[in-house]
Amino acid sequence: MRIAELSASTGVPVPTIKYYLREGLLPPGERSAPNQASYAEPHARRLRLIRAMIDIGGLPVATVREVLGAVDSTDTPVDTMLGEAHYALMNRGDKAGEQAGEDRFEVAARQRLDRLIAERGWSVDPTAPAAEEIVTVLAALDRFGQPELTASLDTYADAAHRVAVADLDAVGARTDRDELAEAAVIGTVLGERLLAALRLLAHQDASGRRFPGARDDGLPAD
Amino acid sequence: MRIAELSASTGVPVPTIKYYLREGLLPPGERSAPNQASYAEPHARRLRLIRAMIDIGGLPVATVREVLGAVDSTDTPVDTMLGEAHYALMNRGDKAGEQAGEDRFEVAARQRLDRLIAERGWSVDPTAPAAEEIVTVLAALDRFGQPELTASLDTYADAAHRVAVADLDAVGARTDRDELAEAAVIGTVLGERLLAALRLLAHQDASGRRFPGARDDGLPAD
Repeated sequence: MRIAELSASTGVPVPTIKYYLREGLLPPGERSAPNQASYAEPHARRLRLIRAMIDIGGLPVATVREVLGAVDSTDTPVDTMLGEAHYALMNRGDKAGEQAGEDRFEVAARQRLDRLIAERGWSVDPTAPAAEEIVTVLAALDRFGQPELTASLDTYADAAHRVAVADLDAVGARTDRDELAEAAVIGTVLGERLLAALRLLAHQDASGRRFPGARDDGLPAD
Repeated sequence: MRIAELSASTGVPVPTIKYYLREGLLPPGERSAPNQASYAEPHARRLRLIRAMIDIGGLPVATVREVLGAVDSTDTPVDTMLGEAHYALMNRGDKAGEQAGEDRFEVAARQRLDRLIAERGWSVDPTAPAAEEIVTVLAALDRFGQPELTASLDTYADAAHRVAVADLDAVGARTDRDELAEAAVIGTVLGERLLAALRLLAHQDASGRRFPGARDDGLPAD
């Protein structure tokens, strides 16, 4: 199909498609005439993936390029490819690089995480960006005088692992390599938003049960 | 204490404190001399809360102002206050406002969410921003041809609710109204990051179990 048809079928404007082509996010079409290129279904699928990452995932173009790089390196084994895509996704909005050296809160947080990984027998890289993020958050909770949430760490880890297993079950049903990668990327980004939103909604329910008609201002409940 | 001491005790630079004062995020100090104001512990605590929301939560100043507005309206009952703070937090990075009318994916997604809320007996506002976000994500998954993750919705909802109950247990241990609000805000924002990072880390473990040494490129495992 021509670029106008690719645009029509995906809902992505032609100038945006041209931008993705220039940026190397989208592979070039097959040259069908000196001034014309032809695009096929893989282009449409790739476009949907790019839009998912940018629109839904809020990822910057540089991160999208990194993730696609991991997806496209066909000499990489599946688990490594998924791992690399993950690393790129985990690195978004990275603020960890700012600090030089760890303070006492971070040292304690890292020990807490190491203990959690050991207790659960998780086979993970304790220096992965996600692990750094966990250390940052646990340290911040401690620093802000909110150790209670740290006490819920086991509940969090349980919940996270259940969801992760369900994610892999969903993704693992795919056999095509590209589809597998795309499902992993979309699932990672959208699943994160889904889980966060469900937690916020569940807070409403849990809050209503915890404070049933609670009033602390002496006003009558209305 | 004077502004320089407030800065020293919180690690927030004086110009930043002055900016928060101008923006109304931080209440003015008590005037101790014509050209001097005095700050106390509540200012320091409020500063830590602001920094937590901006640095850790990545919230824009406008959202921080909204959240603090809900925290500070002392004529609001506790559960309403927590609800309002939640609404402000849920509204961050809102992209839902863009669409006009719902397409078939969104209609189906909303029915799916309504069913989930009914089945679980959750007492929640089905038009809350978090609910809108869930509809957006479920519709996107369907649109991107990833219905498998929608099938994991129950696992996600279970996990989210467990975590939400743990959050309320942690927050509910507080009695002071300001502390309660601050714990809720910090817990909501940091808890979200913690859960997301734990899920990513757990993916590593789940992926390793799902693809034990899986190679699809014919190369020997190294």
